[in-house]
Amino acid sequence: MVSIETLGSIGEDELLHRLAKYAPIGQLDDDTAILNLLSPTQLVINSDVFVESVHFSDLTTRPEDIGWRIIAATLSDLAATGCNKVIGVTISMVAPATTSWDWVEKTYNGLSSCLESYGGILLGGDCSGGKEKILAVTALGNVTTGKLHRNDARPGDWIVVSGPHGLSRLGLAILQNEVHDSNISFVLRQQAIRAHRRPKPRFDIINVLDQVRPKDTPWRIAGTDSSDGLFKSIQLLAKSSSCQAIIDQTALPFKADMASLNLQDKSQWVLHGGEDFELVLSLPPPWGKALLHADNQCRKIGVMVAENSISEHPDSVNSWTSTDNFFEFKHF
Amino acid sequence: MVSIETLGSIGEDELLHRLAKYAPIGQLDDDTAILNLLSPTQLVINSDVFVESVHFSDLTTRPEDIGWRIIAATLSDLAATGCNKVIGVTISMVAPATTSWDWVEKTYNGLSSCLESYGGILLGGDCSGGKEKILAVTALGNVTTGKLHRNDARPGDWIVVSGPHGLSRLGLAILQNEVHDSNISFVLRQQAIRAHRRPKPRFDIINVLDQVRPKDTPWRIAGTDSSDGLFKSIQLLAKSSSCQAIIDQTALPFKADMASLNLQDKSQWVLHGGEDFELVLSLPPPWGKALLHADNQCRKIGVMVAENSISEHPDSVNSWTSTDNFFEFKHF
Repeated sequence: MVSIETLGSIGEDELLHRLAKYAPIGQLDDDTAILNLLSPTQLVINSDVFVESVHFSDLTTRPEDIGWRIIAATLSDLAATGCNKVIGVTISMVAPATTSWDWVEKTYNGLSSCLESYGGILLGGDCSGGKEKILAVTALGNVTTGKLHRNDARPGDWIVVSGPHGLSRLGLAILQNEVHDSNISFVLRQQAIRAHRRPKPRFDIINVLDQVRPKDTPWRIAGTDSSDGLFKSIQLLAKSSSCQAIIDQTALPFKADMASLNLQDKSQWVLHGGEDFELVLSLPPPWGKALLHADNQCRKIGVMVAENSISEHPDSVNSWTSTDNFFEFKHF
Repeated sequence: MVSIETLGSIGEDELLHRLAKYAPIGQLDDDTAILNLLSPTQLVINSDVFVESVHFSDLTTRPEDIGWRIIAATLSDLAATGCNKVIGVTISMVAPATTSWDWVEKTYNGLSSCLESYGGILLGGDCSGGKEKILAVTALGNVTTGKLHRNDARPGDWIVVSGPHGLSRLGLAILQNEVHDSNISFVLRQQAIRAHRRPKPRFDIINVLDQVRPKDTPWRIAGTDSSDGLFKSIQLLAKSSSCQAIIDQTALPFKADMASLNLQDKSQWVLHGGEDFELVLSLPPPWGKALLHADNQCRKIGVMVAENSISEHPDSVNSWTSTDNFFEFKHF
């Protein structure tokens, strides 16, 4: 019988000692992490908590991917408010004494590689025993260009997403053996699984937005990320900004080879699948046009109109109506 | 039968809506909280996680006090690194669906009143269902004077604590019916329970340290807080700084009326009771002297000497020896 090293067997001090290697040398030496901010800055902070069986499961996700995903999800919120420079994260981990060190090591390897990919470091954290595995992440970053607010959409704006949706949900379906469509190519299968396991916060889009802003257009973009699903994100922007969103049913942001699949749920997955972690933006048309020109993954999917103005668009069909909070579905 | 409102019955959206009232208006409107730092600054950040039955229990602590304690404990680490200006905290809460809203409301009332006492706000947070109650706190603050590092102790320093120890442990013992000493006065009983339920982060001491620093003494103080017990704190400073600590057995920081009690465990409680959240400092003697003069709760309890130099102090007795990591016990 192979003896497995558990958190109970190594003890708290040894655990903290081992986790310290994921941070820069000396970073965890004091009771707090100290950041020297040498110039005036706009700092963004976001905390997310991930609970085993609610947010992650060893059945569908390897610990390396759990680590990656929790960082990507937390950083995605930073990008969604205009952050383009990650500072780092703190991690508080709760886990039963029976948890293997192997699981912790692989999870921290995954979260480290995500952090490194986006230029952040492990700033600090805490550990405790508990009944189930929980990872609480707080991420810090800088905004060096302009901020994105949920309530900054205006009538006339284009609604633009930074990439295809539904892919992460397809990946989950594949991992859970929900789909048996032989038309799903090997490549799409791999892309969908990767989208589920290794989502990417879209800091790159913030920089592109800054680069392509038309000279005479002041900084104003409404934004959020599509972690909870595209439908909910658009609804959130529209509602916060007292607008109605009109979505072009023919422009749902499918990945091309997913659109051609004969999957009953595919439109549902695009709209409600969640965890694609793309940016959902509402911005002035000239700026939107420049963004689409600069990044061919970005897509225009609709427009914002003034609240209660849907009746002015007599050609609207298939409406979700106002019960969905100022959100309408329409053929253009 | 009275129907109790639970988190399961009110749902996540309503929960978030109710919790938003604990933050300034608009604070939780976006995917992140944004802080405008108008000048260069030294920011400190600390994350702590609190698990039901490990860190708190409804049996000994009311939810209002749980809320106060988790904030005080997290802020205490900020003070221990020289922070004297609290910015705020994020809170991630995990709780079973059966948790009553009443418990959550009282806990947030308690944490709010602690935050307000020290000038901080609720910056953001997250919520999730889970098997047990967990509160993960991340606190942010500014250092406007000088930093305290664990490894900044030097031979010749005085070891000073900001107040009495063991009182919180006495409070816990009273709440758990462990002590039945009729000599414990009503006042001491109340003070001990209050020390356990409503500990205070010692930001005031940081300001005093700044005010009383002798002109020719550069800023250098080693510091930590005594959350894990006085013994462990001193050991930590000594070990991190490659020093040995010599503690005066006759100067253990008892509260006066606790010292006179006939309690078998009282010295253990002073040294190992924990959760007193006082500052444990190692600093140059003139500065230590000025601090004692300015704040009569502060006490000198020993001195730092060079590592492996205990043999130069032939009068040391009752030593804990080097197995305790450079820590010695001595009559002066």
